[in-house]
Amino acid sequence: MKVGIEAGEVSKASVTRERVINKGVSVIDFILRIVACFGTLGSAIAMGTARQTFPFSTRFIRFKAVYSDLPMFSFFVIANAVVCGYLALSLPFSILHIITRAAVKSRIVLATFDTAMMALLTAGASAAAAIASLAHNGNPSTNWFAICRQYRNFCERVSGSLIGSFVGITIFMLLIILALVAISRR
Amino acid sequence: MKVGIEAGEVSKASVTRERVINKGVSVIDFILRIVACFGTLGSAIAMGTARQTFPFSTRFIRFKAVYSDLPMFSFFVIANAVVCGYLALSLPFSILHIITRAAVKSRIVLATFDTAMMALLTAGASAAAAIASLAHNGNPSTNWFAICRQYRNFCERVSGSLIGSFVGITIFMLLIILALVAISRR
Repeated sequence: MKVGIEAGEVSKASVTRERVINKGVSVIDFILRIVACFGTLGSAIAMGTARQTFPFSTRFIRFKAVYSDLPMFSFFVIANAVVCGYLALSLPFSILHIITRAAVKSRIVLATFDTAMMALLTAGASAAAAIASLAHNGNPSTNWFAICRQYRNFCERVSGSLIGSFVGITIFMLLIILALVAISRR
Repeated sequence: MKVGIEAGEVSKASVTRERVINKGVSVIDFILRIVACFGTLGSAIAMGTARQTFPFSTRFIRFKAVYSDLPMFSFFVIANAVVCGYLALSLPFSILHIITRAAVKSRIVLATFDTAMMALLTAGASAAAAIASLAHNGNPSTNWFAICRQYRNFCERVSGSLIGSFVGITIFMLLIILALVAISRR
């Protein structure tokens, strides 16, 4: 009889520990989503407000540089804004997962959307990074000249705005791994 | 007694059906990996062998165009080659998952690597697509001219080589979703 009670106690303790870990995973998921939301929002705003105007103009130096001059930078702003909106909308589901442990289907659906959003964000950030690198270094083979010599401030802002996006991509990878772990432990 | 046997039969049939579905998911996983491996291999080879030489040269037209002229195209080739190699190495694990249903931990590890490889492939394809789009259209704001007017064959080959990569990205998304489903059904 005593053995039975002890076994029951051990099993109860182990179940409680499991639940605490599962709740911890869900709470980390929630926090990571908020961080990624702010990261992508910051990226979108930093790129969207990047502009540099010159009070003078010569034959070779243009008046001003804005993000919408390059379609890849526009795509970057749109991708970051969409991902930030998605992350904000996903927060209620993340809270639901903290409360109810069993919601496997909604976890799968959320992880599926996370995967799609990660692809979108990676595509946007990578395209913008490719153009930013070209703007910094130019390319002699194609006669594309580095524009960052003239537009130093604009280029610095553009390069800085990539950081939030790459933080977001890393967080999406963690979110997918957390979802895999949470589903396996349910 | 009869009821009990019937219940047992129903449960046995349901277990068999479950197993068939699980095995089906693993077989689809295996096939998708092979398709993605050939897709990325094709992309790497198509981009790596893209070159165009002119028998003549003027002041404005260069002698030849190869993928290594642009660092983003080199990155594209490397990313595709790495992903193709990873997919080939992951095939034994995929076979293991067809045979043993319970291997949850190895499924999580494989899905984690899949996520990382998806990010790498998306970054490579997106950077190459950004440069290919620039080569096609140029950009008047930055005085980067469209080089595809001169290098038509090179540009067509480059654009075509992107297809295999984007097929690969789609397959990686499917693989992650399949892993989520497989882990939830174990």
